[in-house]
Amino acid sequence: MGIVLGPNQYGKAENRLVVVSRDGDVHTIKDLTVGTSLRGDLADTHLTGDNSKVLATDTQKNTVHAFAKQAPVGEIEDFALRLGRHFVSSQEAITGARVLVDEHSWQRIEDNGHSFVGGSAEKRTTAVTVDGPRAWVVSGVRDLVVLKTTGSEFHGFPRDEYTTLPETEDRVLATSVTARWRYRDEDVDWAASHAAIRRLLLGAFAAKHSLSLQQTLYAMGEAVLLDRPEVAEVRLSMPNKHHFAVDLSPFGLENHNEVFHAADRPYGLIEGSVLRDDAEDVGLAWYSLPEF
Amino acid sequence: MGIVLGPNQYGKAENRLVVVSRDGDVHTIKDLTVGTSLRGDLADTHLTGDNSKVLATDTQKNTVHAFAKQAPVGEIEDFALRLGRHFVSSQEAITGARVLVDEHSWQRIEDNGHSFVGGSAEKRTTAVTVDGPRAWVVSGVRDLVVLKTTGSEFHGFPRDEYTTLPETEDRVLATSVTARWRYRDEDVDWAASHAAIRRLLLGAFAAKHSLSLQQTLYAMGEAVLLDRPEVAEVRLSMPNKHHFAVDLSPFGLENHNEVFHAADRPYGLIEGSVLRDDAEDVGLAWYSLPEF
Amino acid sequence: MGIVLGPNQYGKAENRLVVVSRDGDVHTIKDLTVGTSLRGDLADTHLTGDNSKVLATDTQKNTVHAFAKQAPVGEIEDFALRLGRHFVSSQEAITGARVLVDEHSWQRIEDNGHSFVGGSAEKRTTAVTVDGPRAWVVSGVRDLVVLKTTGSEFHGFPRDEYTTLPETEDRVLATSVTARWRYRDEDVDWAASHAAIRRLLLGAFAAKHSLSLQQTLYAMGEAVLLDRPEVAEVRLSMPNKHHFAVDLSPFGLENHNEVFHAADRPYGLIEGSVLRDDAEDVGLAWYSLPEF
Amino acid sequence: MGIVLGPNQYGKAENRLVVVSRDGDVHTIKDLTVGTSLRGDLADTHLTGDNSKVLATDTQKNTVHAFAKQAPVGEIEDFALRLGRHFVSSQEAITGARVLVDEHSWQRIEDNGHSFVGGSAEKRTTAVTVDGPRAWVVSGVRDLVVLKTTGSEFHGFPRDEYTTLPETEDRVLATSVTARWRYRDEDVDWAASHAAIRRLLLGAFAAKHSLSLQQTLYAMGEAVLLDRPEVAEVRLSMPNKHHFAVDLSPFGLENHNEVFHAADRPYGLIEGSVLRDDAEDVGLAWYSLPEF
Repeated sequence: MGIVLGPNQYGKAENRLVVVSRDGDVHTIKDLTVGTSLRGDLADTHLTGDNSKVLATDTQKNTVHAFAKQAPVGEIEDFALRLGRHFVSSQEAITGARVLVDEHSWQRIEDNGHSFVGGSAEKRTTAVTVDGPRAWVVSGVRDLVVLKTTGSEFHGFPRDEYTTLPETEDRVLATSVTARWRYRDEDVDWAASHAAIRRLLLGAFAAKHSLSLQQTLYAMGEAVLLDRPEVAEVRLSMPNKHHFAVDLSPFGLENHNEVFHAADRPYGLIEGSVLRDDAEDVGLAWYSLPEF
Repeated sequence: MGIVLGPNQYGKAENRLVVVSRDGDVHTIKDLTVGTSLRGDLADTHLTGDNSKVLATDTQKNTVHAFAKQAPVGEIEDFALRLGRHFVSSQEAITGARVLVDEHSWQRIEDNGHSFVGGSAEKRTTAVTVDGPRAWVVSGVRDLVVLKTTGSEFHGFPRDEYTTLPETEDRVLATSVTARWRYRDEDVDWAASHAAIRRLLLGAFAAKHSLSLQQTLYAMGEAVLLDRPEVAEVRLSMPNKHHFAVDLSPFGLENHNEVFHAADRPYGLIEGSVLRDDAEDVGLAWYSLPEF
Repeated sequence: MGIVLGPNQYGKAENRLVVVSRDGDVHTIKDLTVGTSLRGDLADTHLTGDNSKVLATDTQKNTVHAFAKQAPVGEIEDFALRLGRHFVSSQEAITGARVLVDEHSWQRIEDNGHSFVGGSAEKRTTAVTVDGPRAWVVSGVRDLVVLKTTGSEFHGFPRDEYTTLPETEDRVLATSVTARWRYRDEDVDWAASHAAIRRLLLGAFAAKHSLSLQQTLYAMGEAVLLDRPEVAEVRLSMPNKHHFAVDLSPFGLENHNEVFHAADRPYGLIEGSVLRDDAEDVGLAWYSLPEF
Repeated sequence: MGIVLGPNQYGKAENRLVVVSRDGDVHTIKDLTVGTSLRGDLADTHLTGDNSKVLATDTQKNTVHAFAKQAPVGEIEDFALRLGRHFVSSQEAITGARVLVDEHSWQRIEDNGHSFVGGSAEKRTTAVTVDGPRAWVVSGVRDLVVLKTTGSEFHGFPRDEYTTLPETEDRVLATSVTARWRYRDEDVDWAASHAAIRRLLLGAFAAKHSLSLQQTLYAMGEAVLLDRPEVAEVRLSMPNKHHFAVDLSPFGLENHNEVFHAADRPYGLIEGSVLRDDAEDVGLAWYSLPEF
């Protein structure tokens, strides 16, 4: 019986990169958080401390900075693909890379070419996995907070000896959506696709009369797949941010779903995948290093 | 020599209150975080544990909930004034109250009467202090993040033996504005005033060619006071969120203020007040319980 | 081509549970954060909103509360196993469960039977997966922050056109360890095993002269496997919390690794697994729902 | 009527400083978060952008680093006093300084001279204010989390139309203590005083049978003042971290204060000062720039 090294990766996480580009007096900014991780023939550094195959995480950070200058950053998917392929093609020992990019939004302050005000907490995300000659792109949104004041029911669930929840035909439904969608390939107009998918997700959340958050989740994924052939699969993680109607009866008041306490914890957590039944092999798109 | 009780207050902090109102199929929401603190003849509970003058913090929470139903919440300043005056007028031992309200923003999801998407992290704030028959209103914004890509210089500062910072005639300037403004009285259209002041703050940040963040701070406060007679004083706290131009010269690249590292800590912190020279006595507007 | 439901689960996350037990005047507390997730025949709720197989997340929460009373909580692994098996055995549609428990530490205030002071941010963790009749236990620690002031080098790494990092033969090494270890089976003295493994992790971090954080990571995992036959695999995630020696030369001072800036972001991130080469099939121990 | 500059200050916040000192093979670390703020003749930079009196915040940071090398850091109070006096004495325009230091705790890993494991989240704090030749020291603790499982009652409070809280003769009492104490002068053994005061605070929390959190707060402050003549005043801010006994009756179970839900928000917030009736003038100890 021996002890061996299993799956591993290393990199530089959370580079906070802001890139300014100028078209005369009109400036634009890209505000990104970039993480890179490399995989490959890395047993030596683990077993003996021989670092001759370890491209330093500091070098990875420098590469992110240099790439942001050497060519326009462009869409985050393209930037991540360029970075991932660079690491894999330039370092013999490195056979795989994963590049994570979050894009933070800014809005221009009215009629000013160089001043901006921070947007919402919502991030546009991408996770690109490169493995030798292949690559997978999974893009998404995080912290997309949505709420509907009606059009949500929850009933018909089983009642065991621990069940006290009353059934409801009208409740507030609120969640903070993390959605990730796997693209079939790289032949995509990333910005247009992202904007369209975000609109589809919001539209389905708003329009779907909800009998469970699971049903809403499925409807959101389905809406994307029905309309966007470039997407093979959508994964959604949606905390049920409970809004409890406050009992006002002790004060002689009726609460017709008007006054709510927005609770922090615990919260429901609904997670699921919606995909095409002919979706090709997922490969390393989700980077099967579970628990990392 | 004896030991005595000094200034004190108690209350319920961070009630997360969401209120839905309906006009047919068109719903609106108010998403508030409400805190209440009471002051008065409270020595007994501190010295002997006699709670006969201590309106429970749970009761304060209930009052927030009930008031949200008994009348339309309206603007946060009005809601806070109603709450504060209620506590002071209804409890003999309670002579003062402070009510803090943050309002979180939501945007309607296109053409849907009851679905919303979360807005930016920016909060509209108010801090109302009631003392007997008097009241003061200090409103504001928090987490208003702004950035300009040019129009900011910093030079001419003294150089002592610990100074290494080079002078610059062009830098990125970014900050997260906390602004609070003290109103002269309550005869104010709160919503219109808030919207106008926010616009003035953003406009001054964008328009002012900045030689220091202090100068920008002053210009922002001055812009409010010049245009809004209802405001007596503006206090601003503005962290300098440093964006450091990355040195790309090791890679044979020039960085003409294009690629920046957005640093977390440490950060500059600029704080100051801009006020009218005939501003009436500040009273308890800022609630002089320093360090609490 | 059709659209189908893929892997999914749902549950209640972050139940903040505190349990007090009394032995005369001497009380003990268990402070836990408990999450439960269920899997099974859940297509109906996703596709039609039929919830007849959906044990409500509120019921899951109630079950956690009731179980905490019905029998002594005991070690978190046992508590999680009891909960997971209950859900799978009592609900026909539910075939799998995952239960996550974090335990927060408290220390007794000297010679007082019922008063406690909060311990470190470090958590003892477990993640139990139940699938039909089988179960897997993965326990661990999170937020175990360690630092060594010497005994760490980093050199011999490749230098490409983006490499600027100097080699070093002495640096501060600091990390916040997340370790998870997979037990072979349930025949374990959980508390004793956890205490021993924690000691082994700390001991290896301290004793191992480090040529790379990867080498330290491997040494920590190996130390556990060498000494604890009940463990089949250790997975470690270790951010390199960079401590940069400050350049004091502009002030005529030499910095012999004495004064450091502890940086926030970016940070290195080293992740890896150490396991036995005869480790039995991993099954669902890591719950292969990647990206959730 | 004119617009004028009011109170203002500026500085560098949250320098993350780690200092290693060596006695042969035995190393010790000081892990500090340091903030500095300066006041004085600063109208020019606000009004015209003339920075000739503005010691750059970058220089302030450098000074913190250099001072950490030029002499042993020692106790945080001494370090803060040295820094504050340096700024005021070396810059003609600077008449006042405030220096904030948090100290983070580490514990040595058994029998190893250079390896450490992070301690609790509790911080030792100081806030030193220098104004010309004078100085005030206010030290404290933050995030000192304590809990007692019995010995706490709450009853006898007034019941108005919004009161629903039942009276209780036994509850869990938990809080996260922020305490600050003002020293009479600088003739203090800072480390010994801090350790003793911390012990007194914990002892009073544990020993005092509590009829209200206010009573506990007062008892804690009083205990310090009775035993530590070097302290003139203690200010305490204590959130009531509610632990709600879960209603288990629907499951046929009785909950004799055994199973609790630890709630996040809202929370009670009790704040107060305990001081000597002959306490000398407080001066600028609390740095009367309210709301900053």
